[in-house]
Amino acid sequence: MIKLSEISTVAPEDLSKKPTIKKRDKLTRKLGELQHLLYAEDKRSILVVFQGMDASGKDGATRKVFRYCSPSGVWAYGFKKPSDEEFDHDFLWRVHKLVPRKGHIQIFNRSHYEDVLIQRVHHWIDETQVAKRMEAINSFEKLLEFDNRTKVVKFYMHVSRERQKEKLQERIDDPSKNWKHNAADWEEAKLWDEYRKAYEDAINGSSIPWVIVPSDQRWYRDYFVARHLVKVMQEFDMKLPVLSEEQKHVEDQS
Amino acid sequence: MIKLSEISTVAPEDLSKKPTIKKRDKLTRKLGELQHLLYAEDKRSILVVFQGMDASGKDGATRKVFRYCSPSGVWAYGFKKPSDEEFDHDFLWRVHKLVPRKGHIQIFNRSHYEDVLIQRVHHWIDETQVAKRMEAINSFEKLLEFDNRTKVVKFYMHVSRERQKEKLQERIDDPSKNWKHNAADWEEAKLWDEYRKAYEDAINGSSIPWVIVPSDQRWYRDYFVARHLVKVMQEFDMKLPVLSEEQKHVEDQS
Repeated sequence: MIKLSEISTVAPEDLSKKPTIKKRDKLTRKLGELQHLLYAEDKRSILVVFQGMDASGKDGATRKVFRYCSPSGVWAYGFKKPSDEEFDHDFLWRVHKLVPRKGHIQIFNRSHYEDVLIQRVHHWIDETQVAKRMEAINSFEKLLEFDNRTKVVKFYMHVSRERQKEKLQERIDDPSKNWKHNAADWEEAKLWDEYRKAYEDAINGSSIPWVIVPSDQRWYRDYFVARHLVKVMQEFDMKLPVLSEEQKHVEDQS
Repeated sequence: MIKLSEISTVAPEDLSKKPTIKKRDKLTRKLGELQHLLYAEDKRSILVVFQGMDASGKDGATRKVFRYCSPSGVWAYGFKKPSDEEFDHDFLWRVHKLVPRKGHIQIFNRSHYEDVLIQRVHHWIDETQVAKRMEAINSFEKLLEFDNRTKVVKFYMHVSRERQKEKLQERIDDPSKNWKHNAADWEEAKLWDEYRKAYEDAINGSSIPWVIVPSDQRWYRDYFVARHLVKVMQEFDMKLPVLSEEQKHVEDQS
């Protein structure tokens, strides 16, 4: 059982910024190589889910961590409020269309988990519905793994309430961040405790475990995410497909 | 009228590699900033088309040029042989679904042009059909521009026949490139002249002009593409949206 209040939102005290950023750069380069392998091997895929409160760094991590990957093999999709057509279907309908094909990494910026988070916090669905949806989510994620070798890696971007406020305020005070400001975020921020509980339940109700990312500092957050993804991908033990001697004699085939 | 045989496939003689790579790095960083602006502004989009013979560098350019962009705002799609369902529709049906939304750059690795290239070269369609399709393509690209502010930027990756052969051979000789090898590419390469003519006609029949990228050297190719995209995006004269004083008083709205 994960209790978010017991998990730090900051880097360990003995870790300093500069060397960690250097390590992050090495890791993101390594990730680029592994992504290339994944693409070339074309045997499996990865679904990366970023969830977290507003301003917790989902966008930032997406931008930084995948720097050395190719847009051909890494796609990111940001889930917004469902369209009328999407609302007219089960909550996984719009999600299923976007799962990664073999050889690809698909990033979800927000995801199917919103349907047991925002919808629950605002009481648009009742607790029975939440429980049923969690079951459906677990079954859905399992399906991706067993039937298409999709590794599901879920990151909860763990920020403190104070840090969230700071970052939302930055969006007002810093003109270069004004475009990210959304008055509605401030309203949602008031529901901090309700969101926290909904997150905790979703995390603890998940069959595939979550990775809790201390996200108060951008540099540690990106390092943490990159390190985890590299570890996951190294465990795949991927190899570049090579040609047999027979396959090499191509010109004679004509 | 563009005559491909009159356009060089290599870098100008007075250009040296090292400083050009440095410039390319600067340009790709700049492109990252401009992509961020495009995303933040959320008013227009770009469709980047990469077309060219096999091994002409479409994948390589995709990987290198967009390094400093975010996967949130840059998506790349590689068109393969249409599925049965896709074949059962007009040729633009599968393409239309993939055009960029506002704020985004969509890369097409191959595109709707394949339907007047490979299909023409193999005589799967007749010349009347080719002409009709070209008209449909021109109308389609115009639609994207006038109705959703999508800038269409089309790159023809211009390689020499000798260089293509070299690169296809590399895929056999270099184990790290074996995964790219496809015996069918060698068959298609024999139709060089037919493809050349089909490309020339498609380029000259396009309302929106093409950019011919000398692509024999990877370093010049990437520099050339990055430079062009930066120029196009700078002409947009984009600005980050800023908040009015009124909009800044968000906490009082509760």
